[in-house]
Amino acid sequence: MDKKEMLALLTKVQRGEVSPEDALLQLKLEPFEDIGYAKIDHHRGIRQGAIEVIYGAGKTTEQIMGIVGRMVQDGRQDILITRIRPESAHAVQKQFPTEYHELANICIVNPNPTREAVGSVVVASGGTSDMAVCEEAALTAQVLGNRVTRLYDVGVAGLHRLLSNLEPLMTARAIIAVAGMEGALASVIGGLVDCPVIAVPTSIGYGANFGGLSALLSMLNSCASGVSVVNIDNGFGAGYLASMINQMEGIK
Amino acid sequence: MDKKEMLALLTKVQRGEVSPEDALLQLKLEPFEDIGYAKIDHHRGIRQGAIEVIYGAGKTTEQIMGIVGRMVQDGRQDILITRIRPESAHAVQKQFPTEYHELANICIVNPNPTREAVGSVVVASGGTSDMAVCEEAALTAQVLGNRVTRLYDVGVAGLHRLLSNLEPLMTARAIIAVAGMEGALASVIGGLVDCPVIAVPTSIGYGANFGGLSALLSMLNSCASGVSVVNIDNGFGAGYLASMINQMEGIK
Amino acid sequence: MDKKEMLALLTKVQRGEVSPEDALLQLKLEPFEDIGYAKIDHHRGIRQGAIEVIYGAGKTTEQIMGIVGRMVQDGRQDILITRIRPESAHAVQKQFPTEYHELANICIVNPNPTREAVGSVVVASGGTSDMAVCEEAALTAQVLGNRVTRLYDVGVAGLHRLLSNLEPLMTARAIIAVAGMEGALASVIGGLVDCPVIAVPTSIGYGANFGGLSALLSMLNSCASGVSVVNIDNGFGAGYLASMINQMEGIK
Amino acid sequence: MDKKEMLALLTKVQRGEVSPEDALLQLKLEPFEDIGYAKIDHHRGIRQGAIEVIYGAGKTTEQIMGIVGRMVQDGRQDILITRIRPESAHAVQKQFPTEYHELANICIVNPNPTREAVGSVVVASGGTSDMAVCEEAALTAQVLGNRVTRLYDVGVAGLHRLLSNLEPLMTARAIIAVAGMEGALASVIGGLVDCPVIAVPTSIGYGANFGGLSALLSMLNSCASGVSVVNIDNGFGAGYLASMINQMEGIK
Amino acid sequence: MDKKEMLALLTKVQRGEVSPEDALLQLKLEPFEDIGYAKIDHHRGIRQGAIEVIYGAGKTTEQIMGIVGRMVQDGRQDILITRIRPESAHAVQKQFPTEYHELANICIVNPNPTREAVGSVVVASGGTSDMAVCEEAALTAQVLGNRVTRLYDVGVAGLHRLLSNLEPLMTARAIIAVAGMEGALASVIGGLVDCPVIAVPTSIGYGANFGGLSALLSMLNSCASGVSVVNIDNGFGAGYLASMINQMEGIK
Amino acid sequence: MDKKEMLALLTKVQRGEVSPEDALLQLKLEPFEDIGYAKIDHHRGIRQGAIEVIYGAGKTTEQIMGIVGRMVQDGRQDILITRIRPESAHAVQKQFPTEYHELANICIVNPNPTREAVGSVVVASGGTSDMAVCEEAALTAQVLGNRVTRLYDVGVAGLHRLLSNLEPLMTARAIIAVAGMEGALASVIGGLVDCPVIAVPTSIGYGANFGGLSALLSMLNSCASGVSVVNIDNGFGAGYLASMINQMEGIK
Amino acid sequence: MDKKEMLALLTKVQRGEVSPEDALLQLKLEPFEDIGYAKIDHHRGIRQGAIEVIYGAGKTTEQIMGIVGRMVQDGRQDILITRIRPESAHAVQKQFPTEYHELANICIVNPNPTREAVGSVVVASGGTSDMAVCEEAALTAQVLGNRVTRLYDVGVAGLHRLLSNLEPLMTARAIIAVAGMEGALASVIGGLVDCPVIAVPTSIGYGANFGGLSALLSMLNSCASGVSVVNIDNGFGAGYLASMINQMEGIK
Amino acid sequence: MDKKEMLALLTKVQRGEVSPEDALLQLKLEPFEDIGYAKIDHHRGIRQGAIEVIYGAGKTTEQIMGIVGRMVQDGRQDILITRIRPESAHAVQKQFPTEYHELANICIVNPNPTREAVGSVVVASGGTSDMAVCEEAALTAQVLGNRVTRLYDVGVAGLHRLLSNLEPLMTARAIIAVAGMEGALASVIGGLVDCPVIAVPTSIGYGANFGGLSALLSMLNSCASGVSVVNIDNGFGAGYLASMINQMEGIK
Repeated sequence: MDKKEMLALLTKVQRGEVSPEDALLQLKLEPFEDIGYAKIDHHRGIRQGAIEVIYGAGKTTEQIMGIVGRMVQDGRQDILITRIRPESAHAVQKQFPTEYHELANICIVNPNPTREAVGSVVVASGGTSDMAVCEEAALTAQVLGNRVTRLYDVGVAGLHRLLSNLEPLMTARAIIAVAGMEGALASVIGGLVDCPVIAVPTSIGYGANFGGLSALLSMLNSCASGVSVVNIDNGFGAGYLASMINQMEGIK
Repeated sequence: MDKKEMLALLTKVQRGEVSPEDALLQLKLEPFEDIGYAKIDHHRGIRQGAIEVIYGAGKTTEQIMGIVGRMVQDGRQDILITRIRPESAHAVQKQFPTEYHELANICIVNPNPTREAVGSVVVASGGTSDMAVCEEAALTAQVLGNRVTRLYDVGVAGLHRLLSNLEPLMTARAIIAVAGMEGALASVIGGLVDCPVIAVPTSIGYGANFGGLSALLSMLNSCASGVSVVNIDNGFGAGYLASMINQMEGIK
Repeated sequence: MDKKEMLALLTKVQRGEVSPEDALLQLKLEPFEDIGYAKIDHHRGIRQGAIEVIYGAGKTTEQIMGIVGRMVQDGRQDILITRIRPESAHAVQKQFPTEYHELANICIVNPNPTREAVGSVVVASGGTSDMAVCEEAALTAQVLGNRVTRLYDVGVAGLHRLLSNLEPLMTARAIIAVAGMEGALASVIGGLVDCPVIAVPTSIGYGANFGGLSALLSMLNSCASGVSVVNIDNGFGAGYLASMINQMEGIK
Repeated sequence: MDKKEMLALLTKVQRGEVSPEDALLQLKLEPFEDIGYAKIDHHRGIRQGAIEVIYGAGKTTEQIMGIVGRMVQDGRQDILITRIRPESAHAVQKQFPTEYHELANICIVNPNPTREAVGSVVVASGGTSDMAVCEEAALTAQVLGNRVTRLYDVGVAGLHRLLSNLEPLMTARAIIAVAGMEGALASVIGGLVDCPVIAVPTSIGYGANFGGLSALLSMLNSCASGVSVVNIDNGFGAGYLASMINQMEGIK
Repeated sequence: MDKKEMLALLTKVQRGEVSPEDALLQLKLEPFEDIGYAKIDHHRGIRQGAIEVIYGAGKTTEQIMGIVGRMVQDGRQDILITRIRPESAHAVQKQFPTEYHELANICIVNPNPTREAVGSVVVASGGTSDMAVCEEAALTAQVLGNRVTRLYDVGVAGLHRLLSNLEPLMTARAIIAVAGMEGALASVIGGLVDCPVIAVPTSIGYGANFGGLSALLSMLNSCASGVSVVNIDNGFGAGYLASMINQMEGIK
Repeated sequence: MDKKEMLALLTKVQRGEVSPEDALLQLKLEPFEDIGYAKIDHHRGIRQGAIEVIYGAGKTTEQIMGIVGRMVQDGRQDILITRIRPESAHAVQKQFPTEYHELANICIVNPNPTREAVGSVVVASGGTSDMAVCEEAALTAQVLGNRVTRLYDVGVAGLHRLLSNLEPLMTARAIIAVAGMEGALASVIGGLVDCPVIAVPTSIGYGANFGGLSALLSMLNSCASGVSVVNIDNGFGAGYLASMINQMEGIK
Repeated sequence: MDKKEMLALLTKVQRGEVSPEDALLQLKLEPFEDIGYAKIDHHRGIRQGAIEVIYGAGKTTEQIMGIVGRMVQDGRQDILITRIRPESAHAVQKQFPTEYHELANICIVNPNPTREAVGSVVVASGGTSDMAVCEEAALTAQVLGNRVTRLYDVGVAGLHRLLSNLEPLMTARAIIAVAGMEGALASVIGGLVDCPVIAVPTSIGYGANFGGLSALLSMLNSCASGVSVVNIDNGFGAGYLASMINQMEGIK
Repeated sequence: MDKKEMLALLTKVQRGEVSPEDALLQLKLEPFEDIGYAKIDHHRGIRQGAIEVIYGAGKTTEQIMGIVGRMVQDGRQDILITRIRPESAHAVQKQFPTEYHELANICIVNPNPTREAVGSVVVASGGTSDMAVCEEAALTAQVLGNRVTRLYDVGVAGLHRLLSNLEPLMTARAIIAVAGMEGALASVIGGLVDCPVIAVPTSIGYGANFGGLSALLSMLNSCASGVSVVNIDNGFGAGYLASMINQMEGIK
């Protein structure tokens, strides 16, 4: 939709021929239609922010290279690729300026040197084995322009570790609590703070954790208020939501 | 803790005898210790806001009357009682100025006539049968001072109902999506808006919904970003979290 | 059963010695007994249509070659092999005229150059990662003589993608809705159209999708009418059923 | 939308100001907006057919009476109320001409004396205890104008009962297979016939049937082609879908 | 087995005619055979301690009265009846000297006035609604001669409540941690103390707690050492095990 | 226990010094104690029959060779090794006279040339992919001396295949019904015959079969009498039980 | 089918016009068609034995009376009604000579005074609370003419109770092991005896028994050979199968 | 915290400036803060005993070498590494004096030559395939200074094996019962002994054991008293808890 078309649309709205809602919907959809390249898989439909996201799982190196190439050509910065396999990451690194975070399975192509870091998002985790999910969350939030504090290995079985880190928790605007096994971290943090807590169950563990089910159920049943839950291992989703909350403007 | 004690504590902090974190913790805990009445069951540990909440399920009428009486004596307004049985509600109504919302199983004792309604929280639901959960969420948010818009019966099987209500959705600061059965509402809304969406699965349905499990799994697997989930039927938790998000101040 | 035998059977029916039902059953079973080669595994007992189907999973290359050889010898066209491994497919391709659809794990041996394409079957999918299941469904329907329209990557988190494709949906005679994760696509399409919708849950996803369970439950609980469900990842079954429905004759 | 408005819309389409898809959507939604009575809960959004459906579960007698009254006033015939409680049914019977089918928990208000019965839908069931679900399916199909044949108590543990009823099965255009316990009926019928089979698992049984889960899984895993499944106990959905299939026109 | 028989047995052992193991088994079984009254249902086979236990669930008042009568006749004290219905309890109270603990559904018949209270068992719970299970555990431990400290309503969402009760926890010899919902209490306590922690999940909660499953899985996955789990709501089992541990003698 | 010891034991019984039950137990246990070689893992405690069984899963080639060697040395015939890996089987074949059934993962060492085949056991299966489990059952029954008839690929979706094999089914003394997917075979056979039917669910299938759960639940819920179920894929157990039943003597 | 018809059929067989299998099937089905009274619900298709069985669950008193009346008129003895409600039982008792076993929810109408009791079936149970299921099994076996020994309350937590009853176990021809909770009884018995063991899981228990699931899984995983499982609480099925096995004739 | 600091703290306590509880907490936490090396992952927060534990799963060889190196440098003995991969174990063995127990996946670095073995812990298992879990439990208990008796392959299907080992069971102070499949071992042992029994379900088995779920549920439902359960395959946790119990001092 070029300027002329957009003008035409708004004129119709003014004349009452098109409702404001329909116009809104049309404008919102526009960017997609512009691309005209069916193979681009926009990460779970995100089009609100300043960044581009590619969900790497199940994509071949060729597909990823194609999509990234197109985005770079369009002058995009901070292109985030999640769940990327090492071989794809190395291919991307060779051809484009790229930060590759191996542990998090994330690439950031054309990293923005002037990226901001505002507000305060805390990523807390119960153990060191949850770190891949944690970093997916933390890097997502960073790329989206949030100041991020990492509090790793502060699980509830050693409460002192959590209690000696009260300050960042108490001043956070959004907290991501990542935990596998019994998932109690979200409840304990939720009882200590006044800001939204996003709980991320992880599939880390063995036996009766049933692939993350134990942590998931535990977090859903949290008796602390202000806690909500995303899918097992969904670090990206938590980072994205934390960014949304952290960057909220005040009510005017 | 009276003023003198508080001064003493802060002096210790100044002298380095007590860490700021410990002092913070002590101050935070204080209100509880003051009450000195073990039987008061603070609703899942909420002490941040201006209201008092009582979780009515599993409490006798006598217990509820006792707790309410104590709170009224303390001059509390907007005392919210959730999941209250009709007979308890009637007893409360007789003795105290009370709004009783039968459908939502909620009483508001000593309702605050000057209560504010700021920002914009939307409660959307898939069907009319989810209304008890919806109203628990909506009333909780209202008592906490939020402006609430209800969009009921806008399930995805009749998309037009949702699409003809885009305006309140697009201007909301937080949306609560309540749905049983297939729980798709959260994903569809999440794909349309830019604010946090709190998904509440309900146990409404029959057959393979397995007490809300179908909606829960569906919502956790939402491919829209910005969606997180609370426990099945947990209208209160959603209303509380929506209030937290809606009333966030901007980053200074 | 040769002509003489068949005549004998019908004579018996005429004389009342054999009931019409028994005769029907005998005639229906006949083709099988004729083959006289126990190793042929007819794809889930299909013998109604003009094509032959081989379920490739768990069969060795030798077994597949043997069955195909026999069928080719019998002059069969459009022999469909589903869930075939690449090595088996390559062996088949070497020896017989074969279309190999790698993504769908399907081979079509002796493709029929005059195959028809009647009516209208739509295969719609939520994301690009469901494409293997989609293509299994679409190719099955094509080989069975149906005109197939593919609408891929029209998931509910980006509703505009679906809404800008209303025309093929509204004119379809049968729609196959393929989706993993939250599986909401079937409900949304079911609410828009007037024809049968066959929902295919896929095992695509991670975390709380539990191998397709989330999409399965979601689809079973669809609140739209006209929606029914086949097994997780069962593209063939959906394509077969869609063909049955699409090719129904009118009531005389 | 009156004629003038409709003309205006179509003129816009002609001029290219509104796309055909948008117009289609507007026209499709229209009937709903006309009603202007928010409390009417259209049964899972069905608006395609000639009948009106009310889902009675969870509705008070007053709510049902109100909705029915409005529909009768509009001159509607064959108003189907499903899952209605006896007391509500009696109230409806008193005030309106009503057929009450107690076993099926169904009322048909203003039954149409000239209702057609075309094509052939068979409802088959494994045991007598599934009869409530069967009758919900059968009556739904009848009200929608289909000729319905009932084959009850033809479960697979007594195969002869099924085999002595081959004729109606073999000439049906759509078959609804209702079964609890091990749910094998759908597979056996699916292997005998050439038309679509709609499987309805029921919650009838005890022990390891887990509220219908055993029949549900069994039916989803059917190795017969042409079988698809609806939710546990969802007789209405099966009847509705069977009607859709039975009344399909031939490809022109 | 009277003295003479016992002598005979031991003589056989001395002569090598009977192995020590067989003799041990015979001696161990003896008390049972003496009773000679088949209807007595010894509480899950306990015969080690000084008390008698009757599992009241599923027993009629008559059956309970019969068993108690027999035991009283035998001069038993501290006869513990668990899971007793009120009407049975009242019947027992009328005829025998009985302490009836209504909340815990427990009767203690012929309470021992000189009962000891040694060592230290703590019963801690997450919320007031778990109190029935807590009291079943606590009373069981008391009747078995243990000193019991109750720490109720110290759930992890309000950590200060737990931390201000560190002293009894740190000096306990065995701790029973009772919690429903997310069940995190066991992990937090397990991380603070050095003695065995017996976790009791409760069925208290709603939604995704699935009858105690969430707490059960959470507790089994505890990352604190020294924690083990008993069945959902099994207060008796926990009290019994805690007694066993608390009363262990030192290694000589 | 040599003859002298056995005599001594029986003398004690005669004198009343040892009860017949104890003597029975001692005699029954004897064979085990004789072996005096801890590493021999008797297949699930079987010691009743004339054969020896080794459960090969999880055993190294060395362990298997050791156990077999010992048994051969003892002059054993028809040593059955189940779930053996190919490499172990080849090692066994090299050193001992062995029948290796690759499909069934079974070795028979020192096959008995004069082995009997009495009575009639039928092994029926739904599809060709269940053949490994079928053969485990069939070979087990054969080695145990039963006459075995195989009816493979007679699944219920093609009923004619089953009905044209009624004769062996109707004359069997025990039938093993092996089926994956929907597991309906056991019910259909159970309804046709008068002898015990042992149902073996298999893990064959995909999607909602959940590793054999669908067939398992289906079989447990069979509405045919005379049907019982063993563990998923437990061909050995079914063969063993069928042998027990087939070889029962008549009541004298 | 009267004699003339039967002769006609057999003549056809002789002439080769009808296969022996078809004739067999026709003869087997005949008894059913004779009855000509659609409402009779033959208990899960049993027609082999000398008795008649009515499954009482879900039947009204009127339905039961009707069916029983018809059977009595036909001169039937030992009519077994399972899962009958007390009010129906009392109605039956009033009108017909009836043994009513309240605990087992069973009526035996027209009890046969000359009923046999051959062979040996043992019904063993873990606890007294499983008695309803036990008695359903035991009475079914008795009515079918088997000698039945009851060994109740011999659960594995008090092994001596089982070991002091070895004699009846060791001489049984079929054993029914009934157990709820952990269901270990079947394994322990299976390891002691040489005859088939039919395991019946019961829904007795609480907490993590999940309606009998724990016992069911435990029994399916039994490492003893000769054990098979029927549905949860299915005493009738176990009694019927035990009778089949107990009354097997020897191989001629 | 050096002496001076500790003195200061205690002085504050004396003066009432700091509560004893706070001081206790500070002292308890101290050791951790001393280490000052974030990468050290203390095995589930254990700091009570004389040994160091490293959870090897998910750690690289480099990470393990780094942590071990640091501990060795600190003069630690009996450093236990659980769930270590062979390649990491070999690297550790090369550089440090190490006992490597391959079957148990355990390394003991700097084994203490004067390590004690007090009291009596029995590790009993149902089959030889559970040995890895058994040895993890047994070695953990040994390193912690307990005398350990192993009773392997004493499953309940061969009761005599268990009964001929009564002596060590009856004199144990704590018993670890390890079992997969039906998990009945814990119940049987629990019914024989008077000391705490720690049940460890294992994931060993196939079919309906569902990764250890069958044994887990069976053990949780044990009707023997004194039995509690740890996570599936959690040998370490069982060994640790058994040590805690075995080494309890008597009540003074």
